[in-house]
Amino acid sequence: MDLCQRLRQAANPYWDASVNHRFVDELLSGHIDDEVFARYLVQDFCFCDSFVRLIAAAVCAADDPEARLTHARQLSVLAGGEYRYFIDSFQALGVDEAHWRNPPIAEPTQAFVDLMDRACASQDYALILVVLVVAEWLYLEWAQRSQDLPERAEHRDWIVIHNEPAFVQWVDFLKSELNRVGETQSFESLRAPFVEASRIEKRFFDMAYDGLDA
Amino acid sequence: MDLCQRLRQAANPYWDASVNHRFVDELLSGHIDDEVFARYLVQDFCFCDSFVRLIAAAVCAADDPEARLTHARQLSVLAGGEYRYFIDSFQALGVDEAHWRNPPIAEPTQAFVDLMDRACASQDYALILVVLVVAEWLYLEWAQRSQDLPERAEHRDWIVIHNEPAFVQWVDFLKSELNRVGETQSFESLRAPFVEASRIEKRFFDMAYDGLDA
Repeated sequence: MDLCQRLRQAANPYWDASVNHRFVDELLSGHIDDEVFARYLVQDFCFCDSFVRLIAAAVCAADDPEARLTHARQLSVLAGGEYRYFIDSFQALGVDEAHWRNPPIAEPTQAFVDLMDRACASQDYALILVVLVVAEWLYLEWAQRSQDLPERAEHRDWIVIHNEPAFVQWVDFLKSELNRVGETQSFESLRAPFVEASRIEKRFFDMAYDGLDA
Repeated sequence: MDLCQRLRQAANPYWDASVNHRFVDELLSGHIDDEVFARYLVQDFCFCDSFVRLIAAAVCAADDPEARLTHARQLSVLAGGEYRYFIDSFQALGVDEAHWRNPPIAEPTQAFVDLMDRACASQDYALILVVLVVAEWLYLEWAQRSQDLPERAEHRDWIVIHNEPAFVQWVDFLKSELNRVGETQSFESLRAPFVEASRIEKRFFDMAYDGLDA
């Protein structure tokens, strides 16, 4: 097993619980409650700003100029299309701008923001990659469970963003970078933040159902 | 005078000597020795990687999410079109790939790389902006001296990249950001790196003529 596979195995209970979460099942089938999906998207949008910072931190910290450009190009994808998706979806789901611009921050959202901010401040490429790999690979895995796409654009596009060929390439790139630069680090120094990030992802999906009847 | 104007005035001898440098005169007229222009471009290309890092550091350090996205979009401009310009120009000027990929680094190039790396490592948005403002505003000023464009693409495009409307907007943005965030800092803490960067710009143009008969 390569380093990424060993890390994923270490995060197994949280990882598998996320990839096979009720939230994912319902999204993939298109039968997800609007309130649940809106709550999730509003919180997800809260950490877009930190996520942009995290990829920029990878641009800064990468030890290879070619890898730096790959991160830089992905940043422009994020700064372009993905913002559009959120605005359109908030409209489709009837979420007021006043709410999505300034919602109360949920606990797992804050935990993720804190983890990303720590990775940024560290200027440590391996740590930055760990957080990116969890965020992107875990999303690729659940999106690759998709069979027939649901009809509504806000459901369908959130799946396609995370399993289209360009995204597969991006995740492959992140994993190969982590396999490369993580080699020289102690496994434990990577395992701890990898598992922490995976645990937050699981709590993030749980959060979408907080206060709702099951 | 606003902060940027006061900084520019403090850097005056180096700033004006750069904007009105013989190199600029010759480039604007299209009568610049191929060897001089090639030497300049090869060294300029050497710090592209550090410059990409510097803009990414601005993405990380910006205190405002909208400003962060503006920096992120500029990064994609740099990671896209400007690289293409260099490759095409090296070909037009007959510079071997083996040379432009691994040239001996000239002294002002190294000084600029060191300054940019210091700004990146500081994670200090005001310091990052100082270096960006000098690099971009000084280039806008010389490029705005242009009247009729020279014919050869490698001359013409290097001027147009630095005076087209999108670049004017980018420089306006950088200056307004520095005026905004620099307010709370001591003038001296900004003046020193601003003057240092301007001094390097002047030496950078000088360097293109090193070892050549005037």
